[in-house]
Amino acid sequence: MNWDEWDNAKVAGCDLCEQVGGTLIWQNEQLRVVLVDDPLFRGFTRVIWREHVVEVTDLSLEQRELLMRTVYLVERVQREVLKPTKVNLASLGNMTPHLHWHVIPRFESDANFPNPVWALNTDEAKHAKPNGLKDATLDDYVRALKIALWL
Amino acid sequence: MNWDEWDNAKVAGCDLCEQVGGTLIWQNEQLRVVLVDDPLFRGFTRVIWREHVVEVTDLSLEQRELLMRTVYLVERVQREVLKPTKVNLASLGNMTPHLHWHVIPRFESDANFPNPVWALNTDEAKHAKPNGLKDATLDDYVRALKIALWL
Repeated sequence: MNWDEWDNAKVAGCDLCEQVGGTLIWQNEQLRVVLVDDPLFRGFTRVIWREHVVEVTDLSLEQRELLMRTVYLVERVQREVLKPTKVNLASLGNMTPHLHWHVIPRFESDANFPNPVWALNTDEAKHAKPNGLKDATLDDYVRALKIALWL
Repeated sequence: MNWDEWDNAKVAGCDLCEQVGGTLIWQNEQLRVVLVDDPLFRGFTRVIWREHVVEVTDLSLEQRELLMRTVYLVERVQREVLKPTKVNLASLGNMTPHLHWHVIPRFESDANFPNPVWALNTDEAKHAKPNGLKDATLDDYVRALKIALWL
């Protein structure tokens, strides 16, 4: 099944209703996990709630738990496979008010550590270097994530 | 009881082991809620785990649920009393790797909307204006938060 078959409750003009938002790793009826194509912060992953809701407290407690358990699982797999210095979790959504979590593996050698990834301006980003995660490691990560999510 | 009576498992040099991290609103044996003295983003609140752990997945599922329910409660009270355009949630900890959540009420008129608060550089921050939350509203918020947390 494709992610876009979930077309009820879609909001026109909402990026996360209309687009996958990355490379789809896994989905169920409630949410999807995507790998973000970020050239600097490789391994950047998003957990996106399927239905268009704005805040985490718009969900029931059961739904929040399902969502957060998925976020925790992504964090666990990042820690296990990518060995980051720190994992950054964030649900912002100021530009795209459709509930989603950023799960970002951070490394002391990455483009903007220890600052948040959002503190890097466009000009700095142009001259910054990727975090050094190799393609093979990223493949291992996606594979481990799929297995963990399917379990 | 003062927050600093919890002195087991403190890590020397860790800001959130050694300092309250804001104005204490509420605490129990596991966590505390503090109001951050942020001149621009008024209402900025933190939920800080008492024990020095680094990542949310260092906690048991039960502990995570306790922590997140507190984060949700802060979000609910912000939505109810402060009426923000969006709530921003984040657990970063790159500089202070002691588990804590930022709960930030965002407004279209605030210093850096719709960008993350961390995207404001020092120079921009110097010339930026507070988000316009009045002292009385902030007092109402803290009062509502205390009541909700004590319940």
